[in-house]
Amino acid sequence: MKLIYSDDHRDHAGAKEMRYDEMIPMSESPERMDMIMEALVNAGHNDVVVPKSFSLEAVYKVHDPAFVSFLERAYPLWEAEFGPGGYATAYTFGMRGMAQAPNQSIHSMLSCYTFDVCVPIVEGTWKAIRSAVDVALTGVDIIQGGEKAVFSLCRPPGHHASGDLAGGYCYLNNAAIAAQAHLDGGARRVAILDIDYHHGNGSQHIFYEREDVFFASLHARPEDEYPFLMGYATEVGKGDGKGYNLNLPMPKGTDFSSYVLALQVALRRIEHYAPDVLVISLGVDTFVDDPVGGFELQSPDYSVIGQMIAQLSLPTHFIMEGGYAMEALGTNVANVISGYCQDG
Amino acid sequence: MKLIYSDDHRDHAGAKEMRYDEMIPMSESPERMDMIMEALVNAGHNDVVVPKSFSLEAVYKVHDPAFVSFLERAYPLWEAEFGPGGYATAYTFGMRGMAQAPNQSIHSMLSCYTFDVCVPIVEGTWKAIRSAVDVALTGVDIIQGGEKAVFSLCRPPGHHASGDLAGGYCYLNNAAIAAQAHLDGGARRVAILDIDYHHGNGSQHIFYEREDVFFASLHARPEDEYPFLMGYATEVGKGDGKGYNLNLPMPKGTDFSSYVLALQVALRRIEHYAPDVLVISLGVDTFVDDPVGGFELQSPDYSVIGQMIAQLSLPTHFIMEGGYAMEALGTNVANVISGYCQDG
Ligand SMILES: [Zn+2]
Ligand SMILES: [Zn+2]
Repeated sequence: MKLIYSDDHRDHAGAKEMRYDEMIPMSESPERMDMIMEALVNAGHNDVVVPKSFSLEAVYKVHDPAFVSFLERAYPLWEAEFGPGGYATAYTFGMRGMAQAPNQSIHSMLSCYTFDVCVPIVEGTWKAIRSAVDVALTGVDIIQGGEKAVFSLCRPPGHHASGDLAGGYCYLNNAAIAAQAHLDGGARRVAILDIDYHHGNGSQHIFYEREDVFFASLHARPEDEYPFLMGYATEVGKGDGKGYNLNLPMPKGTDFSSYVLALQVALRRIEHYAPDVLVISLGVDTFVDDPVGGFELQSPDYSVIGQMIAQLSLPTHFIMEGGYAMEALGTNVANVISGYCQDG
Repeated sequence: MKLIYSDDHRDHAGAKEMRYDEMIPMSESPERMDMIMEALVNAGHNDVVVPKSFSLEAVYKVHDPAFVSFLERAYPLWEAEFGPGGYATAYTFGMRGMAQAPNQSIHSMLSCYTFDVCVPIVEGTWKAIRSAVDVALTGVDIIQGGEKAVFSLCRPPGHHASGDLAGGYCYLNNAAIAAQAHLDGGARRVAILDIDYHHGNGSQHIFYEREDVFFASLHARPEDEYPFLMGYATEVGKGDGKGYNLNLPMPKGTDFSSYVLALQVALRRIEHYAPDVLVISLGVDTFVDDPVGGFELQSPDYSVIGQMIAQLSLPTHFIMEGGYAMEALGTNVANVISGYCQDG
């Protein structure tokens, strides 16, 4: 399987995030990609492709251009006020009833366009965001070129970002941009299977009222876990999209014996939907030792996940999302890809 | 002038707040009240009244009962999950498009009912919130009993809290609850003059579509200062409330020579509105050395502010909001009250 990767994510680093009563270095670090690439190559996946450069046209089909412009300008505006080397971040948020008229103030924009304290914007963030989109869109091209599967090693991740809101380490929604690009490239229907530990609230929201993208997500119960407000089983889509959104929340402590049953449910629904392309939002923060997650999957389980996905025999576009257990991160990701290739 | 004060605010303490890349002890501390009470007594204002106890009936006229219930239950629910001694706080926020169905999860409720990282809830918070409301409502009783002016020493402050959102050190909106209680006690019209450094977004929102409460606020430009998304001069009210909301934002660095002109504008508008009661949201974070604020008022200026308010000759209900320059805080508050009494 071709891997699409660029080093351009590397300078998206150095900011801190709030963990209760202290500020800690962000778990979502460049070293994550090093671990993943190393394990993939060690497992024999060494067909690494450099992404092509794309315009923002495909991005604007999913994201508000004013929001995209904010992401591009945020750091320079922040630096103009506070000097170099820091990171732009909001600490107050435009919730219901708070007029949200984006203006040219970086402070207002941060409060308008981000929904939590986990999307700091450093000098290198925009370059990384742009590159992650190129990595995703290059994958679309490769699938359209007839490859059966491809892996876009996007960083930063994307599945928490909606059309005009960044949050949870996510800025632009790489998986959603790819899904839309698959449609625009000729696919009639696309399914997104999100197996990150956290609910992909951004992806759900983007396609919530559409029937041409089926979104299925396995994740921790939002009563207990980020993003708390979305990801409930009752969220099944709306309007034309009714019936095309499937949430399978599971309690903390879930191990593979339960997880695999939910995965089967999702795969059966995807099979029934019969998409032309399957996009996998691949997070491995479901791993037992993940510092962020609370599930109990073991490394060999990820091979089974890859095999089960392969059994659908669909053109499959893997897109990297979360996973923070540094020692096992690479192995877990490589196991998914090897499992897929083994059965494919 | 009678001062209404209770020690019940004291255990609302010990939490931290995010200041860029570190977590620091909250600026909004019990010691603020000690400074204020000491300076008031030293200035001869020693008619201190203990608040009466009120039911939540008056609160429910301004705040969603489910939100009030959240504030009461938040700490016990948090403690049940994380153990004693901490504080409940959100780090992700239910912005547009994120379904906000409050459920019994403390995490979901925090993300649904708070709009920033500056409203931690410790074990003593609910007692303090309740007491601040009693302090405000006792002031209403005293004004209705015929006193010309009264000072409710509320803590925590309230003006950032709207009907169902807490934020910016504010949980329930003491000034809004008092304004509504004045109306319910017979006043036909009430004006709120908010002279805190920050825009009173909660008070504005609560009365934005009503003509029986005129809200006027002098504050730092929201382009530059918290709460960033509200407080613009273009916000003039809506529906029946159109024309009954007056924002007078000023740039950082504003000193009294400019401030006093804006104050005159607000007072003239209030005079024209001819309310039966004037509620003052009294913040003194406009002081030159305030660690949170960026205006340049001097301590003697607060006497002038008190005198100018007194010249309206209206029944006046002072309600404490912000102010964080510990050395001058008491003096500045006492100067407002002394200035008012001197001219009254
Ligand atoms: Zn995740
Ligand atoms: Zn203030």
